[in-house]
Amino acid sequence: MKTLVIISHPELDESSSQQFLVQSFPESENVTLHHLEKTYPEGKIDKKREQALLKAHDRILFQFPFYWYSSPPLLKHWQDEVLEEHFAFGHRGHHLKGKEFGLVLVIGVGEKEYQTGGQEGFSISELTKPYQAVAKKTGMNYLKPLEIFQFPYMTEDEKMKLLIRYQQWLTIDRPDSLRSREEWMIQELEAIDHQLLNSADSAFVVEKAIELLEDNRMELDELAMHIDQTHQ
Amino acid sequence: MKTLVIISHPELDESSSQQFLVQSFPESENVTLHHLEKTYPEGKIDKKREQALLKAHDRILFQFPFYWYSSPPLLKHWQDEVLEEHFAFGHRGHHLKGKEFGLVLVIGVGEKEYQTGGQEGFSISELTKPYQAVAKKTGMNYLKPLEIFQFPYMTEDEKMKLLIRYQQWLTIDRPDSLRSREEWMIQELEAIDHQLLNSADSAFVVEKAIELLEDNRMELDELAMHIDQTHQ
Repeated sequence: MKTLVIISHPELDESSSQQFLVQSFPESENVTLHHLEKTYPEGKIDKKREQALLKAHDRILFQFPFYWYSSPPLLKHWQDEVLEEHFAFGHRGHHLKGKEFGLVLVIGVGEKEYQTGGQEGFSISELTKPYQAVAKKTGMNYLKPLEIFQFPYMTEDEKMKLLIRYQQWLTIDRPDSLRSREEWMIQELEAIDHQLLNSADSAFVVEKAIELLEDNRMELDELAMHIDQTHQ
Repeated sequence: MKTLVIISHPELDESSSQQFLVQSFPESENVTLHHLEKTYPEGKIDKKREQALLKAHDRILFQFPFYWYSSPPLLKHWQDEVLEEHFAFGHRGHHLKGKEFGLVLVIGVGEKEYQTGGQEGFSISELTKPYQAVAKKTGMNYLKPLEIFQFPYMTEDEKMKLLIRYQQWLTIDRPDSLRSREEWMIQELEAIDHQLLNSADSAFVVEKAIELLEDNRMELDELAMHIDQTHQ
């Protein structure tokens, strides 16, 4: 599976959250980072190039700061130029059909404000309807968004969790499935070069983490089997 | 009441619907037409000027083609620049509070497609949540949008009705109230210069139309009074 991350941010270098995400970007030929403002400083989109990029990937992610409940202007310009009739919709416009489409949103206000009665008054699900409609019109499958609220207030621990979540979002099939996330974690733990771990203790911890994940999975599988039998 | 119509359209001259609206724009010192792409061809917004414009008007309308369920990029850029903290929201950010805010949407697809099961799948009320959230955050009162579906397929009669509706939207208090619309119509009819009417017949028709509207209003008032008494 190949993932294209289209980032739109007018001042990427000055955003601590975007820098954090960009620096944790996995080095893989299956993941492409594409920063629109850097690629097109004059704002003139190369439509054919963008359409070829879309065709070459299976998962399309829009990553942007959620200013005024929408994307920065260049991403909207990109949509208006690239997602044209006969390519993205309409007669023979089937080139995005069946791909996955998702949002990585960096949000300045706290999560609890995005509900009726909260300061913002609307949920993220409500405010992202235009993107859900893009997915519908182009025949793409809309993923649960990755929402990053108030990055500057995150603890180091929360940032580490975000990093893992982000890498999973970019690389694994069905990033919202617990099983996929477990498999990804085991793979990453096994890939650690034990020479690099600074003590026998660390190697031991990694091994134990893998064992624990595998044990958890067996228990979950047994529970699932039990539930299936009960429902027969 | 002073109305500011902020139009965003990358090719205004080539849009028959926008040309129709611009040409039917009422000549009044209380209505200001402001085309962003014409004012800022380089895309560089004069923030202070825009904020002064907003302060000088009571009703703010965004008029744009509803491409990909949102505005053209320049209007989004305008939002990000002009609606800044301490002006539009936050501490001392009360300058838009109590104003009216509305959308004039030009939409290429038919009205019935904007519902669950329709081709677009979402209603205009759902797709405009980001603008409703702008109104909430800035303390403006959100008006019912003026939705113009498939202008090129409209009959002459429908276009005339749209023209009247649009002029009302720009000039009268409470454009969604029947009474306000009637009053506006009587005023317009009375303002017709009878010298310009090409026959005594036309003058007679105008007089009869005024009489009819006034009679209708009396009947409606009687009905309303009757209902009020019934509910006491």
